[in-house]
Amino acid sequence: MKKILVIAPHPDDEILGCGGTMIKNIKEGNEVYVCIVTKGYPPLFNAERTELNRKDTMACHKAIGVKETFYLDFPSTQLETVPRFEFNGKILDVVRRLTPDEVYIPHWGDMQKDHQIVAEACMVAVRPKYMPQVKRVYGYETMSETAWNAPNIQNEFIPNVFVDISDTLEEKKMALSYFKLQVSDFPDARSLEAIEALAKYRGALMNLMAAEAFMLIREIR
Amino acid sequence: MKKILVIAPHPDDEILGCGGTMIKNIKEGNEVYVCIVTKGYPPLFNAERTELNRKDTMACHKAIGVKETFYLDFPSTQLETVPRFEFNGKILDVVRRLTPDEVYIPHWGDMQKDHQIVAEACMVAVRPKYMPQVKRVYGYETMSETAWNAPNIQNEFIPNVFVDISDTLEEKKMALSYFKLQVSDFPDARSLEAIEALAKYRGALMNLMAAEAFMLIREIR
Amino acid sequence: MKKILVIAPHPDDEILGCGGTMIKNIKEGNEVYVCIVTKGYPPLFNAERTELNRKDTMACHKAIGVKETFYLDFPSTQLETVPRFEFNGKILDVVRRLTPDEVYIPHWGDMQKDHQIVAEACMVAVRPKYMPQVKRVYGYETMSETAWNAPNIQNEFIPNVFVDISDTLEEKKMALSYFKLQVSDFPDARSLEAIEALAKYRGALMNLMAAEAFMLIREIR
Amino acid sequence: MKKILVIAPHPDDEILGCGGTMIKNIKEGNEVYVCIVTKGYPPLFNAERTELNRKDTMACHKAIGVKETFYLDFPSTQLETVPRFEFNGKILDVVRRLTPDEVYIPHWGDMQKDHQIVAEACMVAVRPKYMPQVKRVYGYETMSETAWNAPNIQNEFIPNVFVDISDTLEEKKMALSYFKLQVSDFPDARSLEAIEALAKYRGALMNLMAAEAFMLIREIR
Amino acid sequence: MKKILVIAPHPDDEILGCGGTMIKNIKEGNEVYVCIVTKGYPPLFNAERTELNRKDTMACHKAIGVKETFYLDFPSTQLETVPRFEFNGKILDVVRRLTPDEVYIPHWGDMQKDHQIVAEACMVAVRPKYMPQVKRVYGYETMSETAWNAPNIQNEFIPNVFVDISDTLEEKKMALSYFKLQVSDFPDARSLEAIEALAKYRGALMNLMAAEAFMLIREIR
Amino acid sequence: MKKILVIAPHPDDEILGCGGTMIKNIKEGNEVYVCIVTKGYPPLFNAERTELNRKDTMACHKAIGVKETFYLDFPSTQLETVPRFEFNGKILDVVRRLTPDEVYIPHWGDMQKDHQIVAEACMVAVRPKYMPQVKRVYGYETMSETAWNAPNIQNEFIPNVFVDISDTLEEKKMALSYFKLQVSDFPDARSLEAIEALAKYRGALMNLMAAEAFMLIREIR
Repeated sequence: MKKILVIAPHPDDEILGCGGTMIKNIKEGNEVYVCIVTKGYPPLFNAERTELNRKDTMACHKAIGVKETFYLDFPSTQLETVPRFEFNGKILDVVRRLTPDEVYIPHWGDMQKDHQIVAEACMVAVRPKYMPQVKRVYGYETMSETAWNAPNIQNEFIPNVFVDISDTLEEKKMALSYFKLQVSDFPDARSLEAIEALAKYRGALMNLMAAEAFMLIREIR
Repeated sequence: MKKILVIAPHPDDEILGCGGTMIKNIKEGNEVYVCIVTKGYPPLFNAERTELNRKDTMACHKAIGVKETFYLDFPSTQLETVPRFEFNGKILDVVRRLTPDEVYIPHWGDMQKDHQIVAEACMVAVRPKYMPQVKRVYGYETMSETAWNAPNIQNEFIPNVFVDISDTLEEKKMALSYFKLQVSDFPDARSLEAIEALAKYRGALMNLMAAEAFMLIREIR
Repeated sequence: MKKILVIAPHPDDEILGCGGTMIKNIKEGNEVYVCIVTKGYPPLFNAERTELNRKDTMACHKAIGVKETFYLDFPSTQLETVPRFEFNGKILDVVRRLTPDEVYIPHWGDMQKDHQIVAEACMVAVRPKYMPQVKRVYGYETMSETAWNAPNIQNEFIPNVFVDISDTLEEKKMALSYFKLQVSDFPDARSLEAIEALAKYRGALMNLMAAEAFMLIREIR
Repeated sequence: MKKILVIAPHPDDEILGCGGTMIKNIKEGNEVYVCIVTKGYPPLFNAERTELNRKDTMACHKAIGVKETFYLDFPSTQLETVPRFEFNGKILDVVRRLTPDEVYIPHWGDMQKDHQIVAEACMVAVRPKYMPQVKRVYGYETMSETAWNAPNIQNEFIPNVFVDISDTLEEKKMALSYFKLQVSDFPDARSLEAIEALAKYRGALMNLMAAEAFMLIREIR
Repeated sequence: MKKILVIAPHPDDEILGCGGTMIKNIKEGNEVYVCIVTKGYPPLFNAERTELNRKDTMACHKAIGVKETFYLDFPSTQLETVPRFEFNGKILDVVRRLTPDEVYIPHWGDMQKDHQIVAEACMVAVRPKYMPQVKRVYGYETMSETAWNAPNIQNEFIPNVFVDISDTLEEKKMALSYFKLQVSDFPDARSLEAIEALAKYRGALMNLMAAEAFMLIREIR
Repeated sequence: MKKILVIAPHPDDEILGCGGTMIKNIKEGNEVYVCIVTKGYPPLFNAERTELNRKDTMACHKAIGVKETFYLDFPSTQLETVPRFEFNGKILDVVRRLTPDEVYIPHWGDMQKDHQIVAEACMVAVRPKYMPQVKRVYGYETMSETAWNAPNIQNEFIPNVFVDISDTLEEKKMALSYFKLQVSDFPDARSLEAIEALAKYRGALMNLMAAEAFMLIREIR
């Protein structure tokens, strides 16, 4: 039995990036935890929509069998205003409390600055000096943010891990459809059809019907 | 009216990488030329299949309206045995005779060594010292070869040009289906379904129904 | 007729990076707009000099025929103190109001942090989800800032677009000379002679008498 | 039980790069195979030394419990003279016959050209279209070759997998000492003391007493 | 006689990264200066420990013969809260007052954000427009921080300068042992044994008994 | 007194890339040696022109005071046909015979394949295991070849060493003018005016009247 932690800057990132892998692991008997880092606050965000979004997240996680979800409630799109030690500390707390075997974090090269700040804090939280060590750390891709940055090699998502999600792609799409406020129609990057195209593209690269792709950041074994 | 040249190491690379863009340009009244660099020779390749493949290529190009196809007939999978000045010279001849406005070449980072050698020779052929200058040079991606190399930044296909092929994706798939010997069933990387997934994935990144992606290598204007 | 927007962190960056291209486009009948992002405020900057600099900018833009200049008046060298959503929002406003065909932004790897912050905000403002889409986004080089960073591959300005400014180099130099407070004597990087050397160097690379070089960040067509 | 294949351009590369990991796996009950790609031929190499080297290799592999060693006997330092299809074919044969779970290959950026050619052929041999698929492919570092190339990012060995060899470092050193012709005194890069320093350095990075570091090239799961 | 300045985000970074080179230069009659950028403040840091740490630093520097040490006393782990112009200004002051021939700065890719911010400010301070120019700027590695970031090519420490510290490694270890609060037991990355392994590893790469490695950022001569 | 060796694939590369630095060193009393690697052979090259070119080279080197020039006479544009051990061996011979302090080699990313092959052989010849060690190895840029490759980060010439050639630029241009067959009119990349623009551009970056730029590949000290 493995303990897996997925850290998502905003709700739905965890499903966009790792939904198929999460469901696959849950089916195999592993424990999957999610940490949602931010929350929208007025006046930048509508309180009602934020509330609805939280409910959608909870319903989604319950439906697929997430063991527990941690909500850190930092202010969305304003993460750089939070003191670094406080921000890093809270993410470290989650990691140290759970002592997960595997951690999935957003790609450091995503355009959305929240993603970058979360990725940095995650790297601090998985430093190999903390015992027990996190054995594997992966970066996941988030359709839209991951591709909209300036196309240079620092940003680029260059995957080397491919997880076969042939058997869970349909459930991933269903999980994503819980997020009524974020999911749009194709060709929007956050549409069910776009997610399916990505899964089939990543799959075909590796001769699989559907896949999620990751960058291995570190493995200790 | 633009003159466009697509250089393909092996027949079908031009359709895999640029088929939608080729058809789109032809419909818009531009002239599209193709240069097929290699041919399979016995005993490495079956002569009958090579012959059939040539016929498929000709039928495909006729169907979509390629203005002229140049067959250089260098030995497939053995390009490194051809003297460099002879090889580069032949590709240069095609470029200088046509004086195209735009040239599409395979991605330098493809795993197949023929692709790398062709890409290098193309760069020699489009050197800006030759007048009239080629105004735009693009690298295209070839499903399978482009993704099977070791995932490092030198190899990586990092596109910055997206061509809307919403209106020509179906014709691209039809064009590809002429290559009976190369096209397989999904999830093979050279299947119609994989090509469609790629087009939708590249499209969704840019809010388009379908797209082909390229790396701009050089533009002079 | 094309609409072109040049976004400059500080006045004179637009001329240093794109002056020849701006003038060339204006002569060809295209509309060129400029957005000056910052302004110097006391006590860090002398108010009189700031005022004079504004006048120089206006005179320069008028002389070369800029259609309209937007002054956002954010505090120079203190951009990180402005709330991100406010900063990004203002730049987005300009882009959405103009709906330009082409946008020129500072190079993300410039050493000056204002340049980096502006480049990031520009990438947010040109996200392909906004309709109508910006068709082309380019990064420009700013002599001095672009070369003074640590010489690693993330910072490096690696151009792939070369615009022939043989016919507008003299006017570019004249335009630059309006900025009396910034222009110095050679070998200062912001001297007329340095700008000419750069133009001739970029030109000679492509067999042109003079050129401005850019990195294509994205083209959708 | 896992099947592991280590591909070494020259005998001793497998121990330098993966010795501790090989021994660890053998102790855990996994099967470890080695493929030695080249052999020295007169007049470039002394026949007697080559013979002795072969005996050392066999003795070493027997001592640590390698299941089987494949000797391809291609000419050392002349690999580029072997026809590509023949060379790639022989390495593919080994991979397809064994159907290993994990393959360790030399780092593509090593300075020694034999290493580069072997790395390329290995990537062809592990293409995901061959069933059953190789689940994991790793690049290993070879003290000396890996660090003597021009220090650019393409060459650089940037590890993301760290294997704890605290319990097998001593046996790795013993295994290496079988190669009497290659091992020298410190500070030679191929000395026992250098290998120990590398293991402790890689270990300390990850809070381990000793480690071998690898670059994950691909994982399919 | 050369004047050398080492800029350290936190006390002990200067010894970890450049200790052997500092001592070697002092022995050769050169003047070595250190600038310690931060200090720990309550409540994040214990005042007593901070005080003790300062004393250790002073004792260490005195023991090895540092000419003068500058303490800027900016708040450790909170550097992003200091106004940029103030922060950059203070580091610039030190550089301009000393007019050193060589400056050693932390690696821009270190994970610790203080290191990144210091590296950026240093690059501003050594801009070639300030006369007399700093002739050489080097980045140094800090065991732990330098290796714990996500392993991508932007972060990677890729050295091209190797200083033979065979004769000063022992003194470097002694110097490091002054920092009682930071030095731990192996395999901690900040242990004497880890530092020795690093020195022997870097040395063996270049056929030296022990070496410190640097990235040359800029040389003007 | 330093011994400096410049390795040039074809005659004139040494002047294009290092001419000002060579002359500066000679004036300072250092010994400068040149190794010309290739020669044009019929039928690819005209014998008379080759002869004339050799005379031009000798006259140029004599004029500026090159201590000795080594002509290896390998076949130009056909270097890949020479056995690797023979080719590497000849370059190694020159290096070991001279035991230079500094070696200047062509940039590994140049488009011309001869340049790449020479650069690789040079790296083999300066391996740190040979005593006495070469203390410094630099890559130089060759106007035209260095910029005509596909603009990716592997190829890119990213200089970190700037040599002030304010006092020798005129002599560099004179030295270059000896090569009557290669030098053309501006805007040809191999014209005196282009070389001057490059020198002033590289100079202005560093606040110098004129400079040659290099990439430090390795320094041992």
